[in-house]
Amino acid sequence: MKTASAYIESLKTMKTVAYAFGEMVADITEHPCFRPTINAMGLTYDMPRDHGPLMTAHSPITNGPVNRFLHICMSPEDLVKRAQLSNFLTPYHGACVGARCVGTGALNTLFATTFDMDKKLGTDYHQRFLAFLRYVQENDLTCSAMVTDAKGDRSLPPGRQQDPDVYLHISQIRDDGIIVRGAKAHQSGAAISHENIVVPTVAMGPEEKQFAVAFAVEADTTGIVHIAEAPASNARRFYDDERDFGNYRYGVHGSTLVVFDDVFIPRERVFMCQEYEFTGLMVQRFASFQRLCSASCKAGHCNLVCGAAAVAADYNGCGAVGHIREKLTEIAFQATLAYGSAIGSGTMASSTPSGVWLPDTIMVNAAKLQAVGAVWQASQLACDIAGGAICTVPSGRDLDNPKIAGMIKKYFRGRADVPTEDRIRIIRLVEYLVGQSSVIPTETVHGAGPSATQRLMIRKAMDLDYLKARAKSLAGIHEGSGIGCATLR
Amino acid sequence: MKTASAYIESLKTMKTVAYAFGEMVADITEHPCFRPTINAMGLTYDMPRDHGPLMTAHSPITNGPVNRFLHICMSPEDLVKRAQLSNFLTPYHGACVGARCVGTGALNTLFATTFDMDKKLGTDYHQRFLAFLRYVQENDLTCSAMVTDAKGDRSLPPGRQQDPDVYLHISQIRDDGIIVRGAKAHQSGAAISHENIVVPTVAMGPEEKQFAVAFAVEADTTGIVHIAEAPASNARRFYDDERDFGNYRYGVHGSTLVVFDDVFIPRERVFMCQEYEFTGLMVQRFASFQRLCSASCKAGHCNLVCGAAAVAADYNGCGAVGHIREKLTEIAFQATLAYGSAIGSGTMASSTPSGVWLPDTIMVNAAKLQAVGAVWQASQLACDIAGGAICTVPSGRDLDNPKIAGMIKKYFRGRADVPTEDRIRIIRLVEYLVGQSSVIPTETVHGAGPSATQRLMIRKAMDLDYLKARAKSLAGIHEGSGIGCATLR
Amino acid sequence: MKTASAYIESLKTMKTVAYAFGEMVADITEHPCFRPTINAMGLTYDMPRDHGPLMTAHSPITNGPVNRFLHICMSPEDLVKRAQLSNFLTPYHGACVGARCVGTGALNTLFATTFDMDKKLGTDYHQRFLAFLRYVQENDLTCSAMVTDAKGDRSLPPGRQQDPDVYLHISQIRDDGIIVRGAKAHQSGAAISHENIVVPTVAMGPEEKQFAVAFAVEADTTGIVHIAEAPASNARRFYDDERDFGNYRYGVHGSTLVVFDDVFIPRERVFMCQEYEFTGLMVQRFASFQRLCSASCKAGHCNLVCGAAAVAADYNGCGAVGHIREKLTEIAFQATLAYGSAIGSGTMASSTPSGVWLPDTIMVNAAKLQAVGAVWQASQLACDIAGGAICTVPSGRDLDNPKIAGMIKKYFRGRADVPTEDRIRIIRLVEYLVGQSSVIPTETVHGAGPSATQRLMIRKAMDLDYLKARAKSLAGIHEGSGIGCATLR
Amino acid sequence: MKTASAYIESLKTMKTVAYAFGEMVADITEHPCFRPTINAMGLTYDMPRDHGPLMTAHSPITNGPVNRFLHICMSPEDLVKRAQLSNFLTPYHGACVGARCVGTGALNTLFATTFDMDKKLGTDYHQRFLAFLRYVQENDLTCSAMVTDAKGDRSLPPGRQQDPDVYLHISQIRDDGIIVRGAKAHQSGAAISHENIVVPTVAMGPEEKQFAVAFAVEADTTGIVHIAEAPASNARRFYDDERDFGNYRYGVHGSTLVVFDDVFIPRERVFMCQEYEFTGLMVQRFASFQRLCSASCKAGHCNLVCGAAAVAADYNGCGAVGHIREKLTEIAFQATLAYGSAIGSGTMASSTPSGVWLPDTIMVNAAKLQAVGAVWQASQLACDIAGGAICTVPSGRDLDNPKIAGMIKKYFRGRADVPTEDRIRIIRLVEYLVGQSSVIPTETVHGAGPSATQRLMIRKAMDLDYLKARAKSLAGIHEGSGIGCATLR
Repeated sequence: MKTASAYIESLKTMKTVAYAFGEMVADITEHPCFRPTINAMGLTYDMPRDHGPLMTAHSPITNGPVNRFLHICMSPEDLVKRAQLSNFLTPYHGACVGARCVGTGALNTLFATTFDMDKKLGTDYHQRFLAFLRYVQENDLTCSAMVTDAKGDRSLPPGRQQDPDVYLHISQIRDDGIIVRGAKAHQSGAAISHENIVVPTVAMGPEEKQFAVAFAVEADTTGIVHIAEAPASNARRFYDDERDFGNYRYGVHGSTLVVFDDVFIPRERVFMCQEYEFTGLMVQRFASFQRLCSASCKAGHCNLVCGAAAVAADYNGCGAVGHIREKLTEIAFQATLAYGSAIGSGTMASSTPSGVWLPDTIMVNAAKLQAVGAVWQASQLACDIAGGAICTVPSGRDLDNPKIAGMIKKYFRGRADVPTEDRIRIIRLVEYLVGQSSVIPTETVHGAGPSATQRLMIRKAMDLDYLKARAKSLAGIHEGSGIGCATLR
Repeated sequence: MKTASAYIESLKTMKTVAYAFGEMVADITEHPCFRPTINAMGLTYDMPRDHGPLMTAHSPITNGPVNRFLHICMSPEDLVKRAQLSNFLTPYHGACVGARCVGTGALNTLFATTFDMDKKLGTDYHQRFLAFLRYVQENDLTCSAMVTDAKGDRSLPPGRQQDPDVYLHISQIRDDGIIVRGAKAHQSGAAISHENIVVPTVAMGPEEKQFAVAFAVEADTTGIVHIAEAPASNARRFYDDERDFGNYRYGVHGSTLVVFDDVFIPRERVFMCQEYEFTGLMVQRFASFQRLCSASCKAGHCNLVCGAAAVAADYNGCGAVGHIREKLTEIAFQATLAYGSAIGSGTMASSTPSGVWLPDTIMVNAAKLQAVGAVWQASQLACDIAGGAICTVPSGRDLDNPKIAGMIKKYFRGRADVPTEDRIRIIRLVEYLVGQSSVIPTETVHGAGPSATQRLMIRKAMDLDYLKARAKSLAGIHEGSGIGCATLR
Repeated sequence: MKTASAYIESLKTMKTVAYAFGEMVADITEHPCFRPTINAMGLTYDMPRDHGPLMTAHSPITNGPVNRFLHICMSPEDLVKRAQLSNFLTPYHGACVGARCVGTGALNTLFATTFDMDKKLGTDYHQRFLAFLRYVQENDLTCSAMVTDAKGDRSLPPGRQQDPDVYLHISQIRDDGIIVRGAKAHQSGAAISHENIVVPTVAMGPEEKQFAVAFAVEADTTGIVHIAEAPASNARRFYDDERDFGNYRYGVHGSTLVVFDDVFIPRERVFMCQEYEFTGLMVQRFASFQRLCSASCKAGHCNLVCGAAAVAADYNGCGAVGHIREKLTEIAFQATLAYGSAIGSGTMASSTPSGVWLPDTIMVNAAKLQAVGAVWQASQLACDIAGGAICTVPSGRDLDNPKIAGMIKKYFRGRADVPTEDRIRIIRLVEYLVGQSSVIPTETVHGAGPSATQRLMIRKAMDLDYLKARAKSLAGIHEGSGIGCATLR
Repeated sequence: MKTASAYIESLKTMKTVAYAFGEMVADITEHPCFRPTINAMGLTYDMPRDHGPLMTAHSPITNGPVNRFLHICMSPEDLVKRAQLSNFLTPYHGACVGARCVGTGALNTLFATTFDMDKKLGTDYHQRFLAFLRYVQENDLTCSAMVTDAKGDRSLPPGRQQDPDVYLHISQIRDDGIIVRGAKAHQSGAAISHENIVVPTVAMGPEEKQFAVAFAVEADTTGIVHIAEAPASNARRFYDDERDFGNYRYGVHGSTLVVFDDVFIPRERVFMCQEYEFTGLMVQRFASFQRLCSASCKAGHCNLVCGAAAVAADYNGCGAVGHIREKLTEIAFQATLAYGSAIGSGTMASSTPSGVWLPDTIMVNAAKLQAVGAVWQASQLACDIAGGAICTVPSGRDLDNPKIAGMIKKYFRGRADVPTEDRIRIIRLVEYLVGQSSVIPTETVHGAGPSATQRLMIRKAMDLDYLKARAKSLAGIHEGSGIGCATLR
């Protein structure tokens, strides 16, 4: 199995075409929009050595150990382990190894669905897929999965868009393979994967046969162009220095728009070609796998947010305050619901004819839906706990200017025994984790005083004695006079 | 009354010392970390011409019209109007004119509290203050208020910090004035105001006399240094271009750390000097005013978020979808609770001996607390509505590269009749408004499918027919056989 | 103006036909399903003597003081006062004086809408209405309003029901009046009012002319039959004694199904007859008034719940515990949002051509929607605070059985200085207020330990030190070694 | 294994002393406060015949099948099955078989903890316990567990109460056994169980040795007195008829205060006697088991609420309305989080030295905490869905009075093809399930219109076009003029 270094070296040998912030990327492994994500992906190659039981599995295909991200889930236990893996890994990178996550989903989905297709249609997709699966397991390759199309007008189905390319489709069928055209959007880690696995994004009808297509393609195949995301946190990496990045080593999403400009896919890598009646099944199975991983990952993210907020509170000198402990507990509660239900969905899984097991539908969807709420609630609470400085802390460069460096160290210090630089670093990590680059949501929490002060004022302002007296009167309680003596009139 | 141009010209004449991203700011009115906020502040000077009844008031001090931000609230109606002003203005700038907001709070607080101090102590603070008030009203000056100290170790009171400077304090009392030392943190718009009004941040005890100080000072007084905030959205302004800024014209918070390095304050501008027993009152009154303004402003912010999300949905082609309309309604509901309670707090106000009216304590605190929740919920919902592109959309510069510009225009298009550039602009505005620069909270919402898909799957997966049958059985309903025939056993 | 006694005497002289629990009611003023509500209504007659400024108003119709429930709101201040009245009164009865509330809504709605009808149609409805209004004001009569029809199949409009009677309608128009037929459901206090004012429940179309009808009718008119509600809390009043009723004096809703079996309405009491195009306006105006009152009343109810829960906590010996104080604060917060927005809706009112002012639509609807959530949240929190005894406390009769009375007094005692009977009374009041007669929601809160214990266990079980370490690592913090030394790789 | 009939017959032979509503209970199996719960308990005896794999287990103690409620959990799978059992069973009775649930907890806790005690202390508690376990398994007996003491003043520990009896304790130690004194409160099903197992309710300190006691006792032992709960829903059973009970066959909680008036416990049934240092462990283990069962049961309860609300909506004619389907989905979502986390806690269990497995602490506590919120949210939503009739529907007796029976059938009819009696039955079931006997929480939902109408009004009242225009302006979008042309100034 590969090391992180070998993974990075292998990326260097690829001819992947990528653009970022208006320019073509010369070496994707050195580029600030990709390297941090590559570092995170590297963990999936290096950490199995220390965490084998969790991060690897025995493959019946190769009859040897494989990275668990490439493993086919043949039992509820496999699903539970897969959820544990995502939950465990996220606090190590605090970012996104999405390519690896969707990879599991795509491989399992294609295993199960090509099996069903062959059984019903007499095709040979499952054998093609098994060959591909053996290849990636043996070579320990990163496989991203591409699902989300560009979509155009969301009120129209794929077949009725003005520009048919907004859903990826077959533009030509040849004896030796197919030509595909279109784009997949928001593709986490597609440009830094070895293989990209394409599957449909919605169930297709008979008039949308050309959109019913699934295949594997190397990320640097001719005709594929990657265009990088450009959020403020990425833009900052060109201007600021690492002291301002928060999660400096891993904190970039690394997603791209992936354009397929008439790309040829050889026959043996095509796993669906016009069999629209299986697209619904494929989409639903993929979603179940991906929601298992996503819910578990985001619960891990919330745990990390909890840790970061706790450090910030410690550095502020208020780690032991009651309402702060309550808020940390609330983050843990919300995260646990998502993770617990994800584990539950693995335990209550059901099997498919191919032997692949699928998470319980209602539990895995509840887990993912809860994860969304948990992350946003954790973000708000961490912002509340860490303080308004997460949007007002000065630049790392200011610490290099002797005219003001002393002022910053003096006035951004929290507890006297904590170096200001450490406090700024944890504040930047919280800024990164809760995603707040512009200031309104954060300023809202702290402007006009943090929420605890409003609660305090409400408590002081409410006339509880008066209300208690009203309650006693209605209950027929006459204190001091023995039993209340009440009559209906 | 001043125009925006005159306001900007007046700033150019000031010698305010400010640093940003490691360098001293040459001309604050041209600097990307300040100019957008100056533009927003400019609205408070230009818009009164078209919105006089709301944005100006009759001052009994000058016996003429004054900007409502400088007005003393002498009736519940004044408070209601003040809340309306903030709610109305925010959708025009989508950013923060915090200096003006806190200005109202500081002026009203000092009016009321210097009156009380003089009455009890026989001092002349109220007359000093009235002279200052007349001056700023006559010259239509922007007064920021400075409350929040650097605070150091939050578990310790001001008087017991290792470095006493972390709370601003009197370092020397002279016949002609005082020398003050310390810093105020997170000061919205302090560097682009004419006057800064300093008040205490917490109630002080007898051993904290030196921290019981209030005064007014010009922002460019010798010894005052401003150090700018440096969130990712500001850093981007050095590297990206305006197409990426979202709220390109106004979208910067403009806060600074304000350091007072032994600054002299003349006697006539000192409004409290060691009278610690009035600090609690001052803090509480200021908080009430500021929460009135903040709750109303943030409700306006939520309204703008609602509008931006609605445009994004329209451009995506799904403005009329049921769950999207429900989510827009939810934002409006949450915002209205904050604003409604703010208006209610003005209506139910109580008066002080000076004639200044204060918002109802419980209502104004409930309003502010609700505003926090409303902004975060609006952020999450807007993120949900607008789509994952708010963290994956490419850079404006990519549109200038002919190799990929066409791909972006083709694949980031939503509805066919909306230019892709417009769609990208509204996506960037949503990114700005919800504050998401790093990607996890947004990716959480959209990764593994948006929340509506999980709800759909839950609906499909639940066995409602079975549950209905169980309910009918327990209720003793035997359909088709007339009345249920039930017995206890 | 009437006293409560006079009100009760006047009810005795009426020939109102009412049924309850299968039997005709002999004397409504002595019946356990009505007397408690009559007691609550009595407060609206007796309390104005001590609370004149709030509970009475000057009527321009009679040029004298009238009960504020009968007052036409001719200014925002009138609306604010009306909201205050409901909020103030509810903690005195803890039940429902709904007939009086809807009375205000119906009188104001008809005042405004008959004015508009006459202006547009040249009818004389407004004059008829003014005569009626003067009559009820001069005689200080209770007017309930009847809006909600029986409705039948909710998927069908009034004109397409299998049985047309499920919406009240005109069955005959005569020179001297009209004959009406149908029923109004869930009518709070209709049977214990002097007058019932009927208005439509939904906007009607041209094919539903017969359903477009508004009129006033005395509650004991021939052909009107009242059938009482029968919730468990009412049933208990036939079997248990007052120690078990909780809110023993006032705690009955007193609603009836009101059947109109071809009832004649004289011409001068008819205020709408087939003018369907005004039904939408009428419904919307009534709803605005009623939501103003309802939101304010329910906020008052929450305040009372807060008081009752606080007494229960005191009696349990845990009134000072942190999480209990937080929960009481939360109730106050939620209640204040509803009340604050209601007050805000009055302040931001708009006027109609008739001079009647209407609450701001968005604020008054937000206030009512929030009131729903506030009451349920208050119920859950009060149940949590008061303890599981609210569903397991024995009967009052058990206290009369010497074999077990001592055991109950011994083992249901909380604090040693509080008589067990008092503790049981407040527990019964909480049971009543939160509406819990069967036990599952309450048992849920306390079975397997109250929520605070789960939060405690979560706090203990979360590995915060581990998570802190992960955060420090990602932030590049190496404690003890000075500044973190981090590189991108 | 026993049948339900045999269970009921066995209860008839017991001499259990119970009081209810002031009177001694002659035959507990015929009494309205106990029979419904006995019916529910009966299901646990009859249903195993059809649901063997779920409801029975193989016991290594008896080497035969036992009721799963009596089974010792020796693997994660056992815990998962146990959670499934509770979740599955609750929709069959809609009430509480709490005695059986806590039985599992007590048996497993004592198995594990007596093992640990013997190992450390050299005692023979585990052998005594095994003999008892074999006895109850062989005779298929219902074992309730008694945990919650009367508690007195909650601010004081057991050892410092004015009346020491408010915590059950050892009053005498003899050679052949012990005498105990005190009471256990809120004991679900204790009076209708064969055996009661007593364990401590909190961790005890060295000064509280006498309170450190665990034992098993037959429910009809001399000196034990049961005093029944008396909620409104029970009181109704003396006055109303079964048409009004909602869950007529099973819907009573059946809890009692259990007084121990110096009861003798033979030595072989004592499992802890003064070993205070094991009380903490015992309490924590019991809580984990009970929260597993409770969370799963309440999720099943929510499912039933969902079914009942759906039937009510169908009968109202609005089962297909969008917001109603959303609300049913929300109930399912909330329930699934609790159940999913419960299943997850079983999967992630850890083992004890005795071989008993314990649910994961954080997950099982999160599951229970979520169950509380789920039940209350389900109650509110069901109340919203089913309509205000759940508190205004007349008595069953009214249907027997020919004067009004026709009116009720006519006007309480929903869909024309559903008998009114069926609609009333489902309404009564919802009333029962959501626990609403007094009317305020329900009336709050429906008075002044249901929540959907307020949301509709908010949607209409918000000025979305204006807000969209503001967003476009800020984003620099000038529609129709091509690309927005924006400059910083």
